[in-house]
Amino acid sequence: MRSPREIINNGNIYVGLVHYPVYDRKGKIVATAVTTVDIHDIARSAKTFDVKGFYVITPLESQGHLVRRLLRHWVQGRGATYNPTRRVALSLVKVAESTERAIGDISRHWNSDVKVVATGARLHRGDIDYHRLKEIMLGSSQPFLVLFGTGWGLTEEVIQNSDYILAPIEGAHYNHLSVRSAAAIILDRLLGRG
Amino acid sequence: MRSPREIINNGNIYVGLVHYPVYDRKGKIVATAVTTVDIHDIARSAKTFDVKGFYVITPLESQGHLVRRLLRHWVQGRGATYNPTRRVALSLVKVAESTERAIGDISRHWNSDVKVVATGARLHRGDIDYHRLKEIMLGSSQPFLVLFGTGWGLTEEVIQNSDYILAPIEGAHYNHLSVRSAAAIILDRLLGRG
Repeated sequence: MRSPREIINNGNIYVGLVHYPVYDRKGKIVATAVTTVDIHDIARSAKTFDVKGFYVITPLESQGHLVRRLLRHWVQGRGATYNPTRRVALSLVKVAESTERAIGDISRHWNSDVKVVATGARLHRGDIDYHRLKEIMLGSSQPFLVLFGTGWGLTEEVIQNSDYILAPIEGAHYNHLSVRSAAAIILDRLLGRG
Repeated sequence: MRSPREIINNGNIYVGLVHYPVYDRKGKIVATAVTTVDIHDIARSAKTFDVKGFYVITPLESQGHLVRRLLRHWVQGRGATYNPTRRVALSLVKVAESTERAIGDISRHWNSDVKVVATGARLHRGDIDYHRLKEIMLGSSQPFLVLFGTGWGLTEEVIQNSDYILAPIEGAHYNHLSVRSAAAIILDRLLGRG
């Protein structure tokens, strides 16, 4: 058994935070606004568990611009010396106009297909549990992109088009974690322990 | 083995978010300002894992006032009907002026001593791992208060005065999770799985 302090090699794992297409509170498909605390928190969790890259996925030019400005400040600008731990985490972040663009970027880098993992709060037929997905990731030489939905979650189309649907985090009659908390827990379950 | 979808009985677990005394970036002991996203996120994680109560610990009257106003809006006010999942999570939140006050509150409710668990990013001699603490919590009829530090973390005095020091979340050469993410991961590890 692995030591609990040992991190597995996560060199083939990427995360994507999807701002479109996602559901709003009424089940309508929308593009959500970028929330800076999502980017900081998920970048820190990604860095903690040695994720290879973090795609902020938004088709809205204004939102992409906001993320790039945040990155300039914290990665190259005055923020980088003020808070080096933010710089290190945010260095993982890239902006992509769509999930397809993120997949294309990873695919070119690896010269390989990309396996897409959808996450969410709902149960789906054929979903995969954490232990099994971890085994598959460890045994694969392909890159994986784990998608998290903002708003009220990834659309069914995105979920059904993914290679794996990860089982929801089981709550005690309550399943409304923030995407920041869900990403932290899922990365810990998949990558944090041997 | 327990089913992964089964939540253990967490009826004796409380969490506390400490805003004083904590370190600032320079190692000075300060009182931090309350961050509303901390309260929302940690309340949601606490509700997900069936935690009994969530104490926001701050000696500053202005900050306590801010938290109570937030609770009035989301628990009793217009927010409660706009977003019922926030109401349910924030119903767990109480304000305490100090950790001692929170302990006193829990102690009176249980007519029992309270076991205090300190968390943080640093290694400490004699720290306890997640599996062992979970066993102890499950086997105990006493209440437990798990403390999370804002800013740069709980002071050494708070840590050394606790009953248990939980081992840090092991990172890959990086250990700077947000307190929101750390709380989510720690509650999942302690309470989320059988």
